[in-house]
Formats: sequence, structure tokens, C-alpha cells
Amino acid sequence: MRKLRNHELGRKSIGEHKLAEKTPFIVVLDNVRSLNNIGSVFRTSDAFLINCIYLCGITACPPNKEISKTALGATESVPWKYYEQTKDAILDLKTAGFQIMSIEQAQGSISLEEFYPEQGKQYAFVFGHEVKGVKQEIVDMSDACIEIPQFGTKHSLNISVSAGIVIWDVFVKFKALEVRK
Amino acid sequence: MRKLRNHELGRKSIGEHKLAEKTPFIVVLDNVRSLNNIGSVFRTSDAFLINCIYLCGITACPPNKEISKTALGATESVPWKYYEQTKDAILDLKTAGFQIMSIEQAQGSISLEEFYPEQGKQYAFVFGHEVKGVKQEIVDMSDACIEIPQFGTKHSLNISVSAGIVIWDVFVKFKALEVRK
Repeated sequence: MRKLRNHELGRKSIGEHKLAEKTPFIVVLDNVRSLNNIGSVFRTSDAFLINCIYLCGITACPPNKEISKTALGATESVPWKYYEQTKDAILDLKTAGFQIMSIEQAQGSISLEEFYPEQGKQYAFVFGHEVKGVKQEIVDMSDACIEIPQFGTKHSLNISVSAGIVIWDVFVKFKALEVRK
Repeated sequence: MRKLRNHELGRKSIGEHKLAEKTPFIVVLDNVRSLNNIGSVFRTSDAFLINCIYLCGITACPPNKEISKTALGATESVPWKYYEQTKDAILDLKTAGFQIMSIEQAQGSISLEEFYPEQGKQYAFVFGHEVKGVKQEIVDMSDACIEIPQFGTKHSLNISVSAGIVIWDVFVKFKALEVRK
């Protein structure tokens, strides 16, 4: 099995990416501290054609040298918006008809493998601070919580890993919906 | 929806983790450079009860302060083994009957959403260097390549994100197999 070279991968130019039909998801980062994590979320969002990233509170914005180290250019292809208060981002998304899904370990949360996006609905997935998670105030404003079930000794996954898992999982289910349309 | 406190998450102690039934996967890191990535793979492997991590070539081993920063203790719960040469790890795994699946963009690769583990088989998933990927020599020794399909401008995902996506995806499919047994 010959490994493919970069030019054989058929990746999009930034112009093509901007014109491409997007996955109808928005990623909200609620006070994410690590620049590494922010950059990584940009890179994953580029790969799965995420509509937009909302950077909220202490979450740093591009241009930023440290974000670029992990985003590797994905800050140019993925649109983003900054909100000083996460709750204002959520209110705007609710007004625009988005379903707000906080990624949290909470009472009554839906286990990720049991969550299926519905045709015609738009979703915003909220990821929180590395230690504190999504703020309770934002959880209270959400339509539901999605939880990545975990069976080990640690309490949580790294936030760039959580975002990768949720984006991939829901992207595949969304694509399957599209095929059935 | 009230967020759960750490003590409500029902996580395992290190002793319980060691005794727990493991997911029959081995993760092989073929010359992974970043200590951050190595630590993150430990943390994800802890969550999904991965059998063992094989650290190969330039991949650093615990104890290491930088690995601990992202592993957050998962180097205590997840067993690991070091090989100077990745090919020796692969040969040992083949002898033990493991299916070797390299995570690579290669000719004839299987797209991750189309890969289903088979009942009774054991799998080793090989992740490569941040820039160079899995070595061609190791790809040639593999039973198959699994590719995470990507639709953006960048050529690859961060390796800790790739590992998170593959481990989660295959873990869920493996659990579904177990239920059908």
C-alpha cells in the first residue's frame, strides 16, 4: 500500500473551502484556556467543513502565534466570531434556530453514541474550559448535554480530543442522513 | 441539567483499572515526536480501556514531566512497552495474531466509517510521526490502512485527535459487537 503524497490527497484551496457546502454545525468554545487546544479545534473544523467557530470569553482569537502552531493555517479557512460573553453567543444561536448541545457530564445527558442529529436541524456544540468544563449557566441554556462515556481512571478527555470525537461522530451520522434524503 | 461532580462520575481507581476487562486493541506509536501528543494518547487510552500502548523509536516513555502534563496520571493506569524499532513491535504483534492497521492515507485504504472490527480478532492501530506519518516500511507490514476522510484544506489531523477519533469509533463498533454476542 503506497502512502499518498500531499498533492494526491485532493485537498481544497482556501478559496474552494470558502465556497464548499458546509456541515451545519457550529462549534462554541466557552472560555477555553489553551492556545494549543484552540488551534487543534480549528484544524479539526477545517477537515470536517464546520460552518463557524464561536470563540467566547477568555478563549483567544487569531491571529496568534501559538494558535497557528497547531492550527497550521486552518484559521484562514474556518470562519470564526468572538463573543465576550458565552451567553450572548448562545442567545444569538437560539434566535437563529440552532439546537444547543453542551458537551458535559451532567444529569440526564445523552451518551454520544446514542445521539443522532435530525434532518433539517442545525446544531451548536459547546466545549468548555479545560478544568471547569462548560459553565452551569450555559448548560442551563442548552437544549441537551452530550456526554462522551469514559471507563478509565481520569475524569475527562483533553478538549481537542473531545472536540475531535464529537465532530467526527456527528459528522458521520449527518452524512448518513444526507445519503438517505 | 446539573453538572456532575468528579466523585459522581464513577471512575475507576488505578487498581480497579488494572483488573478491568480491556478493549482488545493495542495502540502503536511509530516515532511520535511530541510529548504532548504522547500524553494525550495515554489519557484517551485510559478512558477507553486500551490494552497496551507500544512506544517505538523516538517516541518518549514515562516517566516524563511533559508527558505527564497531558496524561494527567494515565501513565499509571495504561500499560506500555518500548521498542527501539517499530518493525520489531509489529513482528511481535503479528506473531501474537494481531491485525495490524496503520492509520494512513494510502492507496487502497479503508475509510474509517467503513471499517468494522470482527468478533474474536485483536487489533493493533499504528499512528505515525507528526509530519512523516507511519513509515512506508511499517505500512508494507500492515494488514490494511485505515484513513480518516478529510474534506478541508489541511493534509492531516493532529495525531492526538486522530487517535481519539479512531479509538472512539472502533470502541463503539466493538461494544456493539459485544452486545450482539
